[in-house]
Amino acid sequence: MAVRAAVAGASGYAGGELLRLLLAHPEVEIGALTGNSNAGQRLGALQPHLLPLADRILQETTPEVLAGHDVVFLALPHGQSAAVAEQLGPDVLVVDMGADFRLKDAADWETFYGSPHAGTWPYGLPELSGGRAALEGSKRIAVPGCYPTAVSLALFPAYAAGLAEPDAVIVAASGTSGAGKAPKPHLLGSEVMGSMTPYGVGGGHRHTPEMIQNLSGAAGQRVSVSFTPTLAPMPRGILATCSAHARPGVTADSVRAAYEKAFADEPFVHLLPEGQWPATASVYGSNAVQVQVAYDAAANRIIAISAIDNLTKGTAGGAVQSMNIALGFDEATGLSTIGVAP
Amino acid sequence: MAVRAAVAGASGYAGGELLRLLLAHPEVEIGALTGNSNAGQRLGALQPHLLPLADRILQETTPEVLAGHDVVFLALPHGQSAAVAEQLGPDVLVVDMGADFRLKDAADWETFYGSPHAGTWPYGLPELSGGRAALEGSKRIAVPGCYPTAVSLALFPAYAAGLAEPDAVIVAASGTSGAGKAPKPHLLGSEVMGSMTPYGVGGGHRHTPEMIQNLSGAAGQRVSVSFTPTLAPMPRGILATCSAHARPGVTADSVRAAYEKAFADEPFVHLLPEGQWPATASVYGSNAVQVQVAYDAAANRIIAISAIDNLTKGTAGGAVQSMNIALGFDEATGLSTIGVAP
Amino acid sequence: MAVRAAVAGASGYAGGELLRLLLAHPEVEIGALTGNSNAGQRLGALQPHLLPLADRILQETTPEVLAGHDVVFLALPHGQSAAVAEQLGPDVLVVDMGADFRLKDAADWETFYGSPHAGTWPYGLPELSGGRAALEGSKRIAVPGCYPTAVSLALFPAYAAGLAEPDAVIVAASGTSGAGKAPKPHLLGSEVMGSMTPYGVGGGHRHTPEMIQNLSGAAGQRVSVSFTPTLAPMPRGILATCSAHARPGVTADSVRAAYEKAFADEPFVHLLPEGQWPATASVYGSNAVQVQVAYDAAANRIIAISAIDNLTKGTAGGAVQSMNIALGFDEATGLSTIGVAP
Amino acid sequence: MAVRAAVAGASGYAGGELLRLLLAHPEVEIGALTGNSNAGQRLGALQPHLLPLADRILQETTPEVLAGHDVVFLALPHGQSAAVAEQLGPDVLVVDMGADFRLKDAADWETFYGSPHAGTWPYGLPELSGGRAALEGSKRIAVPGCYPTAVSLALFPAYAAGLAEPDAVIVAASGTSGAGKAPKPHLLGSEVMGSMTPYGVGGGHRHTPEMIQNLSGAAGQRVSVSFTPTLAPMPRGILATCSAHARPGVTADSVRAAYEKAFADEPFVHLLPEGQWPATASVYGSNAVQVQVAYDAAANRIIAISAIDNLTKGTAGGAVQSMNIALGFDEATGLSTIGVAP
Repeated sequence: MAVRAAVAGASGYAGGELLRLLLAHPEVEIGALTGNSNAGQRLGALQPHLLPLADRILQETTPEVLAGHDVVFLALPHGQSAAVAEQLGPDVLVVDMGADFRLKDAADWETFYGSPHAGTWPYGLPELSGGRAALEGSKRIAVPGCYPTAVSLALFPAYAAGLAEPDAVIVAASGTSGAGKAPKPHLLGSEVMGSMTPYGVGGGHRHTPEMIQNLSGAAGQRVSVSFTPTLAPMPRGILATCSAHARPGVTADSVRAAYEKAFADEPFVHLLPEGQWPATASVYGSNAVQVQVAYDAAANRIIAISAIDNLTKGTAGGAVQSMNIALGFDEATGLSTIGVAP
Repeated sequence: MAVRAAVAGASGYAGGELLRLLLAHPEVEIGALTGNSNAGQRLGALQPHLLPLADRILQETTPEVLAGHDVVFLALPHGQSAAVAEQLGPDVLVVDMGADFRLKDAADWETFYGSPHAGTWPYGLPELSGGRAALEGSKRIAVPGCYPTAVSLALFPAYAAGLAEPDAVIVAASGTSGAGKAPKPHLLGSEVMGSMTPYGVGGGHRHTPEMIQNLSGAAGQRVSVSFTPTLAPMPRGILATCSAHARPGVTADSVRAAYEKAFADEPFVHLLPEGQWPATASVYGSNAVQVQVAYDAAANRIIAISAIDNLTKGTAGGAVQSMNIALGFDEATGLSTIGVAP
Repeated sequence: MAVRAAVAGASGYAGGELLRLLLAHPEVEIGALTGNSNAGQRLGALQPHLLPLADRILQETTPEVLAGHDVVFLALPHGQSAAVAEQLGPDVLVVDMGADFRLKDAADWETFYGSPHAGTWPYGLPELSGGRAALEGSKRIAVPGCYPTAVSLALFPAYAAGLAEPDAVIVAASGTSGAGKAPKPHLLGSEVMGSMTPYGVGGGHRHTPEMIQNLSGAAGQRVSVSFTPTLAPMPRGILATCSAHARPGVTADSVRAAYEKAFADEPFVHLLPEGQWPATASVYGSNAVQVQVAYDAAANRIIAISAIDNLTKGTAGGAVQSMNIALGFDEATGLSTIGVAP
Repeated sequence: MAVRAAVAGASGYAGGELLRLLLAHPEVEIGALTGNSNAGQRLGALQPHLLPLADRILQETTPEVLAGHDVVFLALPHGQSAAVAEQLGPDVLVVDMGADFRLKDAADWETFYGSPHAGTWPYGLPELSGGRAALEGSKRIAVPGCYPTAVSLALFPAYAAGLAEPDAVIVAASGTSGAGKAPKPHLLGSEVMGSMTPYGVGGGHRHTPEMIQNLSGAAGQRVSVSFTPTLAPMPRGILATCSAHARPGVTADSVRAAYEKAFADEPFVHLLPEGQWPATASVYGSNAVQVQVAYDAAANRIIAISAIDNLTKGTAGGAVQSMNIALGFDEATGLSTIGVAP
């Protein structure tokens, strides 16, 4: 018998991607769809690519509407999840695709988000050490941010194997869907096509403490992170270029071996053969992660690069993967490792 | 028991898209993969988005390699299919994604392709009148061209209902994957990004006689077609803007009614609600067709516009849809109407 | 001595392009810059590509601010030009880049714009018959719309030479800057990249009566126009594919000859050699127009295709070209026929 | 009297951009244009955006053809410049846009280019300390690589002021024109649109030793460089994200002050106001460089980011700027700081 899932925030990009995946999930039946400013509209007008749901009408995000579901996905603006989650019973699986419950450190939350910390939920990145155990049977899941997903998967093997100094430098390029669907001048097609531009430079991006949390967990010590996000002229995808000084004795072979071991049994993370590099186009619409790693002897740095689809593995696919674990389904149910290319 | 399918020409864009779809098809097992100039290479190096097939090795396109399959898909350059098909037994379903067997008129073939006509096979556009019957049980299928698919689905209802004069004007924009994977200077990213440009202007495009064949069949009389293809700065998608003079007495309502009737039971063709227009992004990676139609009273023309994914419904999805009919599967098996957007 | 020019509406795309051109104009000194909602801001924050003007501050659009200039360019939303123009003296050259004064027929204006007709000014398309004479010495100029510029230049030679039936079919693709800088969801980069979509289908686009006006003037009889605009995934450029039935006796040679004659002395319109087709990338940032024409004997249609930069020749470049004529400068002063490519 | 300039390699992207700039240069007359595999072709077929030169015919690159010019620009594949330069007299200004004469260290050349070192010419980056003096009156100029231009301008102030540790980490995104016009599968529009992908990871990119040379020169000690280039879905532009550990005592103010001082008198390098970040779209087609810098106190790193047009300031504009200095013209003659945007 299928689990019944509601999606709060079905009109945005994260909500739309989630619905695309849930439509293909054999164990899920799609229940209520909500969206505040768009309540009352046909989904077909808002998400015209989801033809099977075109005639669904968005409802208000109220406890009554969300009642009677086994799973409730929250694809809401940051800071709004706690109030909705409180109204849902302890037996309902609540999967928060916002930031509200990702950080363990309340001070970090307050510094970067400027509001009181709502709490910490099991973190939906199963590939991290202990990640699956934390999710099994859980009724609350905090889905990671898109950048922390790409960065943590690229770098945790180097830290877990003790190969890298705790001083990571990360430059990542993201497609524009990561900035959401609310219209702003700098996100106009006329502005973004043909342009690369950074933002949140100098440590201010809200995903920074989440990366530090993940990498420090892998390293067993605090890892410093310099993170520069850039906006790339493409709708989807993150390419994360991550590097750190190598510890003494590191070789290209030891780096390769650590990554092969880390990803050997992972269903979604694919270490590319030597000489082949990740491309966001190859994981377009897929839950796969492409990773490659190199050791630059001259600069004595480990360079690990990952490509993900920010909306799939970076948001909605990660949410479904974690839901699968929480509910006892096969982790890959309803998820694909096949990209839409070219 | 799954049918076993071989793909000749697995390294190109059509072959890659076909494999993407076959991987998701519950009744198909993927057998031999061939590619002449790339024989011996890992598929992962050529189609890096198809992770589950990354370690497959391309073979030569020989009768021995293609033997022992229930279905053989031919994704070969135009003119090469006949020689391969001859070597396959009459019980093997051969699905030709090239142009070789699409045209009924040998003179048209010779005029547009400059070589002897190889013959005519059942035509893989089930939505046309009699289209499904021609495919049921067939062992040979000629998959339509991408532009003729988009154009025929946009205009046949107007012709079948006797609403349009036999004088169609078509301007279509295609993504660059329609031009294939062989590197040519004018297809470089540097050239195509930011640019729209026409080609094959003035009646010379090879898909013109195929459109005339389909529309004339619907109209019951010869339809003249003025066709201008343009290359658009996107990897996938066709937007076909098609128009014709309206016959006397035509109204907006009679046009709408004809289209509603024509597509009422179609699993893949979706007539949009009034006021909403097709967008190629909405059918990205999907087998769906979005159609909208208007009647311009001032110019007395019917304007019908369709959006397809040229690689999916326009090539590989159309091939799978026709295969499903030929083999007695449900027509939509393994095919999706959900696009990957944004 | 340089003429002093003010720009009302300096924060939008048309205003920005105009400033780019005026900065390179040897006879113009840039005076006041205004922008209502952005008044008080540095231009560098709004038009970061115009480095020499980065420290200029936008002012309110008031008579006082606009006083003391020889030329005032109006780059305002449609319907706002008349009120500003009234306040400017008869000796000031007013160049309206909006639609307000383009149409001769008040009923057409009211039908398409829904407000009272403000009047008709000399029309800034010098290439039309009598176009230059109308502009010489004029103190008021209505700059044509971007689509009418592309379409009229592509088709007027066929009509002026009596080669085409009065029944034109036009499909044009425009870059997104044509839709302006006001943020709307369907103009987000996430939406437009990878997508082609039509709008204003069925005769409703406001540029239609302007095309009819121009082509009818060339033909000496009323020309019917079916016009379908489409939005293309590029920031700039218009590719207009225009066709009409050929009149009896038309040949490829007579068509070619008419176009060669029409453009022989034009400084900006370039009839391409046979076999070469217009590309919007080739006129990126340039005031040039690329035109090519073909005769399709099978469909008995003339197909004329033009490429322009919608912001340059289609708006700001056309404005400067007309200003040059009005003020007695060489028509090409400060304008380039060199595109920025690739 | 104008200087007469020949361009060897006029059919490629660097050659085309150079011609675009020379057409606007008031002191230069364009002489012979050569291109080996394209000799005999009209330039209009190869560089359709350069309308004023459309009827020029490409010649072979021979001493006879290049004779009689005051300046010869070499836009040839790496390794071919020395042979051509030898045949040109010592009074001819030879501007090499290839790599052949950039590196001072012969061993570096041999390691990265695999051929004997041809020598070292004055380096065409006037903004570096002593840069202008080295170019004044010179008859030989080595134009910098596009990445080294972007990176050196972003980071040299930090090194020259003693603010940064000699350990730079650089991730740069380049438009596809940087990869040239020779058609290769991975450069097809179908492949690059929608995709970000790295290449030359791990220290192997040929521009690495050139960056080290420049930054070490500024620092007065050897600077280690970890450089990762990525290919971005845009035709032009480089965004270079550069960082290094800060030395003890560094503050945001001391960093800002060093950059303000370094660029105070530079005609092309523009330090953006605080809070505004470089965007490649803002320097499209312009010789300007946008730079911004931040100090990340948590990670104790200086992050300097620059945006250039890889073909303009990164290649052809840099060449013209250096030629201007060598010939005694004003450095900015014929060059613009105005981008074509949006």
